[in-house]
Amino acid sequence: MSIDYQSLAVEGVRSLTPYQPGKPIEELAREYGLEPDEIVKLASNENPLGPSPVAMEAAREALEEMCRYPDGNAFTLKQALARYLQVVPSQLTLGNGSNDVLEVIARCFAGPGDEVVYAQHAFAVYPLVTLAIGAKGVEVSAKDWGHDLPAMADAISDRTRLVFIANPNNPTGTVEGETAIRAFLDRVPERVLVVLDEAYCEYLAGTDDDVDGISLLRDYPNLVVTRTFSKAWGLAALRVGYAVSSPSIADILNRVRQPFNVDTVAQAAATAVLGDLEYLERSREVNRKGLEQLTAGFADLGLEWIPSAGNFVAVDVGTNAQEIFQGLLEQGVIVRPVAGYGMPRHLRVSVGLAEENERFLEALKRVLERREA
Amino acid sequence: MSIDYQSLAVEGVRSLTPYQPGKPIEELAREYGLEPDEIVKLASNENPLGPSPVAMEAAREALEEMCRYPDGNAFTLKQALARYLQVVPSQLTLGNGSNDVLEVIARCFAGPGDEVVYAQHAFAVYPLVTLAIGAKGVEVSAKDWGHDLPAMADAISDRTRLVFIANPNNPTGTVEGETAIRAFLDRVPERVLVVLDEAYCEYLAGTDDDVDGISLLRDYPNLVVTRTFSKAWGLAALRVGYAVSSPSIADILNRVRQPFNVDTVAQAAATAVLGDLEYLERSREVNRKGLEQLTAGFADLGLEWIPSAGNFVAVDVGTNAQEIFQGLLEQGVIVRPVAGYGMPRHLRVSVGLAEENERFLEALKRVLERREA
Repeated sequence: MSIDYQSLAVEGVRSLTPYQPGKPIEELAREYGLEPDEIVKLASNENPLGPSPVAMEAAREALEEMCRYPDGNAFTLKQALARYLQVVPSQLTLGNGSNDVLEVIARCFAGPGDEVVYAQHAFAVYPLVTLAIGAKGVEVSAKDWGHDLPAMADAISDRTRLVFIANPNNPTGTVEGETAIRAFLDRVPERVLVVLDEAYCEYLAGTDDDVDGISLLRDYPNLVVTRTFSKAWGLAALRVGYAVSSPSIADILNRVRQPFNVDTVAQAAATAVLGDLEYLERSREVNRKGLEQLTAGFADLGLEWIPSAGNFVAVDVGTNAQEIFQGLLEQGVIVRPVAGYGMPRHLRVSVGLAEENERFLEALKRVLERREA
Repeated sequence: MSIDYQSLAVEGVRSLTPYQPGKPIEELAREYGLEPDEIVKLASNENPLGPSPVAMEAAREALEEMCRYPDGNAFTLKQALARYLQVVPSQLTLGNGSNDVLEVIARCFAGPGDEVVYAQHAFAVYPLVTLAIGAKGVEVSAKDWGHDLPAMADAISDRTRLVFIANPNNPTGTVEGETAIRAFLDRVPERVLVVLDEAYCEYLAGTDDDVDGISLLRDYPNLVVTRTFSKAWGLAALRVGYAVSSPSIADILNRVRQPFNVDTVAQAAATAVLGDLEYLERSREVNRKGLEQLTAGFADLGLEWIPSAGNFVAVDVGTNAQEIFQGLLEQGVIVRPVAGYGMPRHLRVSVGLAEENERFLEALKRVLERREA
């Protein structure tokens, strides 16, 4: 017992603080003695619609194969996804959520002493995976809460191996247009990989900011686009994300990913949901309306928010947001504090169904009023 | 296009060959124009019983939560597992199969230049995770196909950070008794972590070799025991493995594992199956009988095999096994060639149901006879 095993961990890991997920409904219910169905969770940018019936049926059927290992090459899903994206299967790397893909990219292309560039207020997984491999994170100050792409290009040094760009970004909801992204990519040396994280891209459809990273791949061989089935496709529970890149980069990523990183049920559900475009359209519609509802509510309460291209919105509660977060929890409403993102006055609120958004806005109003009283 | 992106990958990754899973039934069906239900797969050490009905019901119910992220702390599963194992939840680290746990352990405690010790013919994931982190694998020659534990203790140097021991080992099926393991652990410096991979331990129950690594934890703080729900518990499709260690080591592992590495359906099914001890007992019984059936068949064919403590058996086909493997594929029977494990004359055959074992033995007989003709 004389040894401190924590001191034996590799550098980086020793100082790592794990990712803080949104509080699960069951956990709040346990802690506050609430009934799970009284609770509104708008904390994890989940699809509030509930499962696609097509995905559900495929998942149920796949459960029959519970005792068999998944297809490690995910033949059927890759075929369907390649068709959907108009790429070839050898360009794809599947992951246990896009978290897995982001981590595999970092582990493949950066190591101790290398630099990884990302933006202030960007997705927390970038610094986490950077630290875990002993690389150095270079955080570039945000501009109007979004990525300052020219400053990020300036931050690239001889030791830079990777740049992460979240478009739209979580938790700010900011988005960069194609012109800005191309101008950035034009300045990045070919030896530096750029990861364009498009976890929320499905919500851009039909807007002026509908950038499609995959269409940029032919011009920029150092580009890797990552996406997920956890948001607009509604499969967060099942963990499916993917990268699209050149076959050469995909070959490297596929060597390092775990052979069974996407399970059988997840493969089946993801394959099926790609055929349920009506679900995708409904997801977008619910999101559009919900964002309008939430921001109208914020305006009524005299609060400012960051205009969002995602399925969430960061609202400035005008005070230490942790206090408001706690007040909301007591009312059975879970949102996400983002002090860890350098945004101590903001709360990130995921877009819910109309009645959930309403419950949240009412609870927020009560908490703010009580505070003033 | 002037850059070779493969050359930009970190050392180790560049020379990595991915893990070769057992051929999926669907893949063989596609390649040979067979019907999936004509095919017998004895290639991945899967539970031939089919799903536990208790696990199935829990999994189906969990699908309703498809749109929600998993509980990143897996509260309910950890409670159930801790109770089952008679440990405390803070000793547990869950993984996406034990593959994930093994990888996280390596990434936490070894890095470039460090040494990792494992045995010849041991589970392929040990050299894979070692190479991926740029560490140096030290393979110690086997003794009678099993781990030569004294030689492994001798192989520990100042640069050794980790030792992997598979007990029982896959693909040989060999097992080391508690006395031998304790004698080994007594010789390992405290600063070196020993991973005792007990993926197949459930099959030891009631035998003379029923070693319980978890009971050794109190004497050896540098020990980490890993297990899986993929074998005797029948959840290979869903990916749940775990490590049991001191809380201090678990804290490190939990920082590095991905927050949602075990999905919602997997958590629910694993929690439920722990209550289905009848399923576990039936799994063992089918395995005992199947091993008898297979080895009696081998004896009839005049073949030698390595006595196995797992749910598989490595048989010496007396010739280049790849040829026999191919012959079996043509007959719709999938087993596992193990040339990659330094065993070019062996095939690893998973224990199936009586009729599957019979189909395999008949096919093997035909392939061997045809070869002699």
